[in-house]
Amino acid sequence: MKALFENVAILGTGLIGASLAAAGRRAGALGRVVGVGRTRANLEAALASGCVDAISSDPADAIAGADLVVIAAPVDTSLDLLDLVADHARPGCVVTDVGSVKAPICERAVARGLDARFVGAHPMAGGTETGAAAADADLYRGRVVVLTPGAGTEAGAVSRIHDLWVAVGARVIELDARIHDRVVALSSHLPQMAAFALCATAERSADQALLIELSGNGFRDTTRLARSDHEMWSSIADLNRDALLEAMDRFSSLWAELRGAIARSDGAGVRRIMEQARVYKGKVG
Amino acid sequence: MKALFENVAILGTGLIGASLAAAGRRAGALGRVVGVGRTRANLEAALASGCVDAISSDPADAIAGADLVVIAAPVDTSLDLLDLVADHARPGCVVTDVGSVKAPICERAVARGLDARFVGAHPMAGGTETGAAAADADLYRGRVVVLTPGAGTEAGAVSRIHDLWVAVGARVIELDARIHDRVVALSSHLPQMAAFALCATAERSADQALLIELSGNGFRDTTRLARSDHEMWSSIADLNRDALLEAMDRFSSLWAELRGAIARSDGAGVRRIMEQARVYKGKVG
Repeated sequence: MKALFENVAILGTGLIGASLAAAGRRAGALGRVVGVGRTRANLEAALASGCVDAISSDPADAIAGADLVVIAAPVDTSLDLLDLVADHARPGCVVTDVGSVKAPICERAVARGLDARFVGAHPMAGGTETGAAAADADLYRGRVVVLTPGAGTEAGAVSRIHDLWVAVGARVIELDARIHDRVVALSSHLPQMAAFALCATAERSADQALLIELSGNGFRDTTRLARSDHEMWSSIADLNRDALLEAMDRFSSLWAELRGAIARSDGAGVRRIMEQARVYKGKVG
Repeated sequence: MKALFENVAILGTGLIGASLAAAGRRAGALGRVVGVGRTRANLEAALASGCVDAISSDPADAIAGADLVVIAAPVDTSLDLLDLVADHARPGCVVTDVGSVKAPICERAVARGLDARFVGAHPMAGGTETGAAAADADLYRGRVVVLTPGAGTEAGAVSRIHDLWVAVGARVIELDARIHDRVVALSSHLPQMAAFALCATAERSADQALLIELSGNGFRDTTRLARSDHEMWSSIADLNRDALLEAMDRFSSLWAELRGAIARSDGAGVRRIMEQARVYKGKVG
């Protein structure tokens, strides 16, 4: 295919950014890609693995030379990078990101005058590995990517970002940024908080040595997410605060209902909640 | 090895019972094994797979012919089966079980005069498959099995049950039944309830269709346990009620603390909890 974008700056060559670079170049959707980051070793891994054509530690310079800027950084850093993009991007440059929270990022893009050309994106993909060394050109195959264009976003910019994700094998859906944030608060941020809370509860227990001895695969799977980076997740929790608090409160109500049914030995009430859970689990897989 | 038990009745040939039969026979620790159950198709699967030598739908008869009775049924059924064992077991017959809750089962055994020869056991093993067809002679290899003998349990009975589990590859630890129940409330029953609560919360959401679309591997792993049988789990919750309620309340306190830190944008407080979680996760695997 003819490249959708000839000169690309990827700001952040972690797993998500480096995998998009690798997949986009392989598909012919991206031309020359410059990887930008602060960690030299990771940048060099991105270059060595062939994900990117060049690397740079100067985002302003990389932005100035690009017709596509992909912000692939933690959400709090993404806000700062939008300021830099607004200052240095040339006319016509399309700007996107990959953050797990969309409304605050889209609002910042509008505030910095990037309305027409900023297309927020959130690929529902990840892995237990991190960094450019784990980059995988198939990471997005079959995955959902949410785009959250705003009222002022140019249709041409949206369709080119749409085509980029389709080229790397993703299934694209468009949503209002606030709806996206409300839904991922429940589908992603809530289980993340539950995994942290389960492990922190265990860490504080006086029975810890026995707890570790008596933990099986059930505990391990339920808390897999507790390994996640806490800098990244405290930023996500803060940026999606209102939606996350609402999701946590819904969980608390359910928890109180389940606790009450157990406390009064209301087997039918307990089974009703468990059955609702099983029904949903059957649908979500 | 010389068989530890010559004639064995396994009451319940689900995954746990059938796997113990298969592993014990392969190791030479168990002689002739009769599988007892209510579901004909499952019993026939146990026989066809060679886990057991014979099958029966008459527990009283199988108990009367045994020098070891293994109760491998859901915990509420196990209580009823103890009554049957007390009525039909011959002198010297050793009795054990595999239930996830120990104190109520051990107390029932004492109440029915089985003190000397009942050795409660809880193998920390399981799988996503169920039934005799999924039986696996390697299921217990490297797994922890907790024994909860009481003050009146004969040392000889404890050591033979200990040797049986060692023969099938397990690592055996002995605990007071109440301590076992308090620890598994946190290590096993609590994550189970969290998985149910996460899925039930999602099932009640007006955004359900989008939730399903925007759920990734994180939600899926965290809620793997929500597929579990709700009859079995409502019985476990009821039998381990006090310990489970205490575990749920500890989780609720942590949840309230995390919610409070997020609500006031206290990033350091949020990260402190997440860091405690990460530390525990590093220890538990």
